[in-house]
Amino acid sequence: MKEKFDVKNGLTRRGFIKTTGGVALAGMAAGSLFAGPLKAFGAEMPEKWDEEFDVIVVGSGFAGLAAAIEAKQAGSSAVVLEKMRVPGGNSIINGGVFAVAGSPKQEAEGIKDSPELLLEDMLKAGLYLNHVELAKTIAEKSREAVQWTESLGVQYKDRVTHLGGHSVPRSYSTHNSSGSAIVTKQLDKVKELGVDVRTQSYVMSIIQDKEGRAAGLKIKEGYRFPDESTGTVKYLKANKGVVLASGGFGRDLYFRTIQDPKLTENVDSTNQPGATAEVLMDALRSGATPVQISWIQLGPWTSPDEKGMGIGYVFNAMAGFVYGVMVDPETGKRFINELADRKIRADAIIRLGHPAVTIADSQGVRRVHNLDRALEKGVVKKFDTLDALAAEYNIPPEPLKETINAWNRYIKQGQDREYGRYLQTDSEAIANPPYYACRAWPKVHHTMGGIQINNKAQVIGLDKKPIPGLYAAGEIAGGVHGAVRLGSCAVLDCIVFGRTAGQSAAAKV
Amino acid sequence: MKEKFDVKNGLTRRGFIKTTGGVALAGMAAGSLFAGPLKAFGAEMPEKWDEEFDVIVVGSGFAGLAAAIEAKQAGSSAVVLEKMRVPGGNSIINGGVFAVAGSPKQEAEGIKDSPELLLEDMLKAGLYLNHVELAKTIAEKSREAVQWTESLGVQYKDRVTHLGGHSVPRSYSTHNSSGSAIVTKQLDKVKELGVDVRTQSYVMSIIQDKEGRAAGLKIKEGYRFPDESTGTVKYLKANKGVVLASGGFGRDLYFRTIQDPKLTENVDSTNQPGATAEVLMDALRSGATPVQISWIQLGPWTSPDEKGMGIGYVFNAMAGFVYGVMVDPETGKRFINELADRKIRADAIIRLGHPAVTIADSQGVRRVHNLDRALEKGVVKKFDTLDALAAEYNIPPEPLKETINAWNRYIKQGQDREYGRYLQTDSEAIANPPYYACRAWPKVHHTMGGIQINNKAQVIGLDKKPIPGLYAAGEIAGGVHGAVRLGSCAVLDCIVFGRTAGQSAAAKV
Repeated sequence: MKEKFDVKNGLTRRGFIKTTGGVALAGMAAGSLFAGPLKAFGAEMPEKWDEEFDVIVVGSGFAGLAAAIEAKQAGSSAVVLEKMRVPGGNSIINGGVFAVAGSPKQEAEGIKDSPELLLEDMLKAGLYLNHVELAKTIAEKSREAVQWTESLGVQYKDRVTHLGGHSVPRSYSTHNSSGSAIVTKQLDKVKELGVDVRTQSYVMSIIQDKEGRAAGLKIKEGYRFPDESTGTVKYLKANKGVVLASGGFGRDLYFRTIQDPKLTENVDSTNQPGATAEVLMDALRSGATPVQISWIQLGPWTSPDEKGMGIGYVFNAMAGFVYGVMVDPETGKRFINELADRKIRADAIIRLGHPAVTIADSQGVRRVHNLDRALEKGVVKKFDTLDALAAEYNIPPEPLKETINAWNRYIKQGQDREYGRYLQTDSEAIANPPYYACRAWPKVHHTMGGIQINNKAQVIGLDKKPIPGLYAAGEIAGGVHGAVRLGSCAVLDCIVFGRTAGQSAAAKV
Repeated sequence: MKEKFDVKNGLTRRGFIKTTGGVALAGMAAGSLFAGPLKAFGAEMPEKWDEEFDVIVVGSGFAGLAAAIEAKQAGSSAVVLEKMRVPGGNSIINGGVFAVAGSPKQEAEGIKDSPELLLEDMLKAGLYLNHVELAKTIAEKSREAVQWTESLGVQYKDRVTHLGGHSVPRSYSTHNSSGSAIVTKQLDKVKELGVDVRTQSYVMSIIQDKEGRAAGLKIKEGYRFPDESTGTVKYLKANKGVVLASGGFGRDLYFRTIQDPKLTENVDSTNQPGATAEVLMDALRSGATPVQISWIQLGPWTSPDEKGMGIGYVFNAMAGFVYGVMVDPETGKRFINELADRKIRADAIIRLGHPAVTIADSQGVRRVHNLDRALEKGVVKKFDTLDALAAEYNIPPEPLKETINAWNRYIKQGQDREYGRYLQTDSEAIANPPYYACRAWPKVHHTMGGIQINNKAQVIGLDKKPIPGLYAAGEIAGGVHGAVRLGSCAVLDCIVFGRTAGQSAAAKV
């Protein structure tokens, strides 16, 4: 009986591949009656193109830059368009953590890991909504991907980090704990290869020719975000392909509230202001298939005491959740495994109805690289005693001390007897003042859904076929992460599918 | 602090309305740069239309028939297209339960209820993903909607039913416990009004004119599902509007596995075979905005021992979950509030890894109208003793008896001390043999997501405006139910928005 009803195995072993592999089943046959070509074809073709390239890349984050590098290295001319005044998108303000399964750094620490285990973690966090082939691909290519960034000169810290939802410590951290360490090297490479990154270039429309091929883009040059009256219309021809790597829509209030009406202006976002939906929406208008667009992730580690991503999250992610505890200030008690996946943690905090408080001691903060800045800003606070800490956040002091004592017992016993949290090999009791604390309140962080792609990064249309000449990678593509993206899998996703998209476009796959 | 972080209130009071009301916010401004008209315009216009009507309705279920009746009564000529050989779609095999908040039948039973309470139940089940205005509309119009069906001659049983996820008993049941009781009367009315219901009419494409208006449809007449080689192409002109009421895509393996790869051919569906995605996909290709398409509901009450919806669900929904208990056959214990919302129950059963067993006694089955048929079919089984029942399903007998005894104590005490289940006013102890049992295993039941509509049932395009001449109602529209639809809210949704769509189309809103 187990087998018949084992949904998980059904999906990983055969289900998804079978049903998308073109096997004709009763319920599917009807779809192929679709009336021939998509509707857009030819309508927007200009009389004259202003410029032409083999490959045009939209977006200058991890994925876009990886695509441009690959396309150019494959012998294609290429250009990168960025609507903001500076390149880098969300990637440049990203935390710089990179999931690698079975890495040399893990081997050095004696941590056993495999692409299969990373895939399992991704599927579990993703509530098994992941497009398994896509998730499997990034898991299998994680080592190759990080080595590619190292070949560009990116430097990582020696030790891997254990992030929420991962079975084992496996995440590389860039030397400066920021995605900028990767973007900078990618930009160097792009420049070295002679590929232009054109900022203030806003995509108005993907232009399809009469055969439905993505033939180029209608853009505005000299655009000044968010002033829609700015910029000059230009038509750019793409001889081989257009790569959409424009990111997610975490800052697009219109589109995100259609998908999740809870996410009003009352909910902040970690994203840069340019994380809006217009390229995604235009891709949908071009016949791309929407995938899981209503799954929007809130990051659990942000502070309500500063705007956007801020800096408090570093304390939460690197100390409070890893070496410390998170408590409900009303009770002084823990309420969740601090390393559970992002959605579970974010939902748990939201259910409290008020921010949680994370606590660590002087031992626990040793990997928080920006502690002084966070203290100066007042987002993280320092206390000589737990009583002083409790008073600051209106936490009942005795229950809080009981919580800390219980945690210290778990450390000694080698097991979190309340929530089964993974204990770091170098965990110590929370007993070395001063104590540090930070409030935690979720903000919109990542939009899991987007347009459908296959393993070649081709965009799949509603006619069930790839849209010729159209490729996508990174946050604009849906399915890789399913319902919930695991931390440090975004960089991995962007590098793997960004490179693939550039290669596919250059090869006119 | 509570207020600042109260996500629920943020959304119901102001958030949704504010952000979709056109208020210009930083993140939204960029969207209006969209390149003028949608792409489809004019490309598919025929040289000559074969026929014309004021209003063309796609689909002959609750929503489509309601739309046709309203359009015709408003003085418009109308036609209903149905791709299958018989009219009625899923509606005709629906269970015939209809949520009404604050009804005469509730008043007669002394049950306090209100549209506000129904809305609250819907939002809670919908994980607050509901488009609040839409949900509010059907809650407020529930009494008017059921009375409209009564004016067509539909008869309901005297007592209201208490379905999972509802705070109080409020669901009307048709006299024959089937949606056919409503569809039949709607078909009578449609006939009386002189509106044709054309079966075997397959929609190939929504045709938009040069201004983007839905001008008509390209269809196949004489189509024989699912044979795509059948039928003759015809062009039907819609002078006023096209109403999409084509239902959900629960039987469309291709499209449903893109949205949820778990739902392979290993997972059955309660839907009729024609519940496929082609009209939804064509609406997306016409520029309609996708809403929450990845939220697909599994009904918790179906039996794995028969195909499709079957008949065992009546026992589960009307006896096992209401007057009886549901146990895990491996432990003999309850594992969930049997009246929790559908998703929670379905997820809980799936997590078991095998079907659950529901149990009731001779008192508990008194409202199961088809008991003899279910027994004959062997889907429900009858036992003189609990030991015999336990033996049949391999349930450890002593724990099972403890579960029943505990339940009987809860009935006496007036409170379910394990899962807080609502106790019916006429609940009795499970102590009157014979005992009855049925297995429960989820099947794909309803697709919550679809295309975006507003309160006038206008389809909202990716250019953020209504698509002129295009209306939608029922399961093809997304947002009303959010993440999870409450039982008996489908009929309500279809009648309210079906009628609205017909009125809007006739008035060329």
